[in-house]
Amino acid sequence: MELGLIGLGKMGGNMRERIRRAGHTVVGYDRNPELSDVPSLQALVESLKGPRVVWVMVPAGAPTQATIDELAGLLSPGDVVVDGGNSRWTDDEKHAAELAERGIGFVDCGVSGGVWGLENGYALMYGGDEENVAKVQPVFDALKPAGDFGSVHAGKVGAGHFAKMVHNGIEYAMMQAYAEGWELLEAVDSVTDVREVFRSWREGTVIRSWLLDLAVNALDEDEHLEKLRGFAQDSGEGRWTVEAAIDHAVPLPAITASLFARFSSRQDDSPAMKMIAALRNQFGGHAVEAAGSSDTK
Amino acid sequence: MELGLIGLGKMGGNMRERIRRAGHTVVGYDRNPELSDVPSLQALVESLKGPRVVWVMVPAGAPTQATIDELAGLLSPGDVVVDGGNSRWTDDEKHAAELAERGIGFVDCGVSGGVWGLENGYALMYGGDEENVAKVQPVFDALKPAGDFGSVHAGKVGAGHFAKMVHNGIEYAMMQAYAEGWELLEAVDSVTDVREVFRSWREGTVIRSWLLDLAVNALDEDEHLEKLRGFAQDSGEGRWTVEAAIDHAVPLPAITASLFARFSSRQDDSPAMKMIAALRNQFGGHAVEAAGSSDTK
Amino acid sequence: MELGLIGLGKMGGNMRERIRRAGHTVVGYDRNPELSDVPSLQALVESLKGPRVVWVMVPAGAPTQATIDELAGLLSPGDVVVDGGNSRWTDDEKHAAELAERGIGFVDCGVSGGVWGLENGYALMYGGDEENVAKVQPVFDALKPAGDFGSVHAGKVGAGHFAKMVHNGIEYAMMQAYAEGWELLEAVDSVTDVREVFRSWREGTVIRSWLLDLAVNALDEDEHLEKLRGFAQDSGEGRWTVEAAIDHAVPLPAITASLFARFSSRQDDSPAMKMIAALRNQFGGHAVEAAGSSDTK
Amino acid sequence: MELGLIGLGKMGGNMRERIRRAGHTVVGYDRNPELSDVPSLQALVESLKGPRVVWVMVPAGAPTQATIDELAGLLSPGDVVVDGGNSRWTDDEKHAAELAERGIGFVDCGVSGGVWGLENGYALMYGGDEENVAKVQPVFDALKPAGDFGSVHAGKVGAGHFAKMVHNGIEYAMMQAYAEGWELLEAVDSVTDVREVFRSWREGTVIRSWLLDLAVNALDEDEHLEKLRGFAQDSGEGRWTVEAAIDHAVPLPAITASLFARFSSRQDDSPAMKMIAALRNQFGGHAVEAAGSSDTK
Repeated sequence: MELGLIGLGKMGGNMRERIRRAGHTVVGYDRNPELSDVPSLQALVESLKGPRVVWVMVPAGAPTQATIDELAGLLSPGDVVVDGGNSRWTDDEKHAAELAERGIGFVDCGVSGGVWGLENGYALMYGGDEENVAKVQPVFDALKPAGDFGSVHAGKVGAGHFAKMVHNGIEYAMMQAYAEGWELLEAVDSVTDVREVFRSWREGTVIRSWLLDLAVNALDEDEHLEKLRGFAQDSGEGRWTVEAAIDHAVPLPAITASLFARFSSRQDDSPAMKMIAALRNQFGGHAVEAAGSSDTK
Repeated sequence: MELGLIGLGKMGGNMRERIRRAGHTVVGYDRNPELSDVPSLQALVESLKGPRVVWVMVPAGAPTQATIDELAGLLSPGDVVVDGGNSRWTDDEKHAAELAERGIGFVDCGVSGGVWGLENGYALMYGGDEENVAKVQPVFDALKPAGDFGSVHAGKVGAGHFAKMVHNGIEYAMMQAYAEGWELLEAVDSVTDVREVFRSWREGTVIRSWLLDLAVNALDEDEHLEKLRGFAQDSGEGRWTVEAAIDHAVPLPAITASLFARFSSRQDDSPAMKMIAALRNQFGGHAVEAAGSSDTK
Repeated sequence: MELGLIGLGKMGGNMRERIRRAGHTVVGYDRNPELSDVPSLQALVESLKGPRVVWVMVPAGAPTQATIDELAGLLSPGDVVVDGGNSRWTDDEKHAAELAERGIGFVDCGVSGGVWGLENGYALMYGGDEENVAKVQPVFDALKPAGDFGSVHAGKVGAGHFAKMVHNGIEYAMMQAYAEGWELLEAVDSVTDVREVFRSWREGTVIRSWLLDLAVNALDEDEHLEKLRGFAQDSGEGRWTVEAAIDHAVPLPAITASLFARFSSRQDDSPAMKMIAALRNQFGGHAVEAAGSSDTK
Repeated sequence: MELGLIGLGKMGGNMRERIRRAGHTVVGYDRNPELSDVPSLQALVESLKGPRVVWVMVPAGAPTQATIDELAGLLSPGDVVVDGGNSRWTDDEKHAAELAERGIGFVDCGVSGGVWGLENGYALMYGGDEENVAKVQPVFDALKPAGDFGSVHAGKVGAGHFAKMVHNGIEYAMMQAYAEGWELLEAVDSVTDVREVFRSWREGTVIRSWLLDLAVNALDEDEHLEKLRGFAQDSGEGRWTVEAAIDHAVPLPAITASLFARFSSRQDDSPAMKMIAALRNQFGGHAVEAAGSSDTK
């Protein structure tokens, strides 16, 4: 089949390659003319026979909104837009409604795979009507991993991004789990080879996983991670997971702890802990040093 | 080689079988005469040629202590005792010292594998001197999984149980991660097939793991887990992980949150939340119902 | 001065009384004619001499929005609307802009005090321009407690509700602090009179507070809180505090833990813990009972 | 009455003064001869008429143990030892048993008051038999604050230190509550005077407390706490509170979060967050910078 693909960065470029390897035609557009197959969105749309499928793979928020706005004016009834970026699930219904006014279908798709996706396939979670999903199915089949798993029609519009968001929330807490365990093992004297402990866990344990394999890779490059700062960004999806949980009164203590650990990692100094230090000083002694050195109250 | 194996319950019985399949001789003892190969610990010890290796696989605490005390009187210098149970790592040095007084070696070994171990092998984490470990190595090789991983000499005496304990701590937080994600997905209307979302994650995602495979198995048996109570025991190892972290001033927010979630799951009613309800009543209104229905303060 | 006051429920009714006791004229309106001084909002507006100050004390969200919409059509340039309800701070800028189009000023005010406010005064945190705040100042002075503290011009429009929201977030964690301590004391045998321990803390300790006084009151009514369920509602403000923290990448572990504890308290059974139970069953044994009774893996 | 007081540091010295002001005789001993009233423990014991009351106010652990050991050899049946230091409650039964062998009574007493105690009185929580407590009662009455509250016979031996330990656990979470709220208020632009917001809360709010008063004092000295590092020590009591909770399967999420925040505050860099950064790098891109700047997976 034919696919229009908008956004040819690290993710989009590899996805174009994987879809082409599966025998499909991909017309790619990127603002960067060196990456782009066509000079404009309009040219992309005109190069596809209807009913068209156009996959949007640009940053969430304003870039995605602008792209969908422009596509709404260029596409025809019966065409389908797929948002494969990291949009917040709450945007999906708005985008679907905007396109539906012109008879254009919408499917949201969360994509996981990173730098490994080109070779191993991308995990896909998508949401939307059966009819629209069916039009995109050959592309989903080309992108997904080769095995029995890796793609799912998760539900209605928004369900794809929601499921991908929860995937990332789980990912945060799993990473935190290994990170906490690693820190504790590194802290004790009796365990003399933490890296080999991690390596051994790759088989026969309850905690074997792909993330564990990656942890071993990382430790093989830098046994005590001395070349790295303990500094971790967070994407929107971890935050949105907690916000969604609050909306539904679902307690997420481990995922939220993992998000907060990242927030803290980016603070040079903790304002909250300044207040703790100040209070200890107030009730425990006049000098900050005294407060720190004695806690008898 | 020859091995004496004490404790032939679910774990020990399967381990005996796996070691025998590897061609070794195992003399097993259990308090239950129907399971036991010999009538007594003394008979077990007498049936082995020196230097003997005796593997203790009984519950942590008093039963392990009693067994080691008895072995101390029966074994000879140069023999080695392996504690393969779930002992707290702080017990290992005591046991090693007790046995060393009589020239008997000691190795501690954390074992992971559960009901899957007989077929897939047991993950092993052990601690002790090279010399003592070498005497047990053929048994470790028989028990471990077939691949390149799954066993490790983690360090000094105590390191094996410590590593296994941290493994379990990580396991707690990984399980909590999936559990939180599952609860959130089940809470929203747009995601219409949570089980298929979990199944899809088995390939191509960042969060693929053996625990995820088990989660899919569980959902295949009971799609919404309606047959289960949300009630989870905890073994000592989760608690000990947090205690070890406190000893070393290592923050473990996700693992600890997972442990506390289990504590809460076993309470019919939360005393703490009674106090919250009482306080809201005090400042918000005179009736508990009024306190619950209005939060304007 | 004259004040129009809309919403004469438990809070608004007492506030009317306190303002009147200070010698001001209050014209109150409520949908319930038995509480209302005037038959309609229009009658309320007509009964006040300009420049008018109208205080809105109705539930946050749609009721407040509807009231402000109606006032926008009734009031005149130079009048001021005060939103004293529990509105989310993000609504305040919208309300201020809507009213500013017609030359009407806006002040947001978070109010704390509950059932104690009539006698002790209400703590007030307000936001807005100096000019608008000045028009409301006599009412603030009437409502606030008698001492040196209890009211603050916190900043720009929205700052009042933001400060009140953070007050409530702090309140959540303080209540949780006492609740956790109480539960732990009740759990041990050696402490034979927990209520008297709490009572003793009212003087000379680091943790003496008004909330502690209330806790003692509650324990005097019901020593072990046996008449209460451990079930706690949460108002929007706890949730908003966490959301605001996420927006600003501020870690709030204790406040968030307190919010999640309330969520959990309202669940008959925890879906997440069903998943934990299911996973333990999968790797630890075939029967759920077996999984629960043995944790050796 | 007569009291022997051992340990005349910041706490002990002020306590001697307060007890003397109440008209009692205090014979003080300190290793530092400049502080001491007598040259030795033996001299202290000999200077008191029986039945003697000797109050131990030295650091927990080895110093307290050594003092009690020495007193066991010096005192007579019917005498009473009070441990007023910060001993772990689990030590109290051991000390009581050791002394009981010689007919000497034991009372444990948790003391709160810090630098404010001399003037305001010390909050006291004590445990032990009625008979022994009665012998110390005049000293308790001298030390406690002037009002109706501030001292309690909490229960059996150990109950005093346990109650004081829980007091400190609650204190941790209350301090964290204010600290988190302060950090969030400082993070937003609309709130232009955070210090005045805190000051206003001193009256009429739900969160008014002595700790809040101290926070205002601290902000008056340094409005944005710029002179302080966000670095907080923890005493043993916060750790013991969490350990006691684990022993009793009591969830303490807010108190534990507060403890872990202190642990984190003392780390120059977080090992756990190094692992998070390493994992993000592994699955998200080859360069650490790339991993940090893009989170699309």
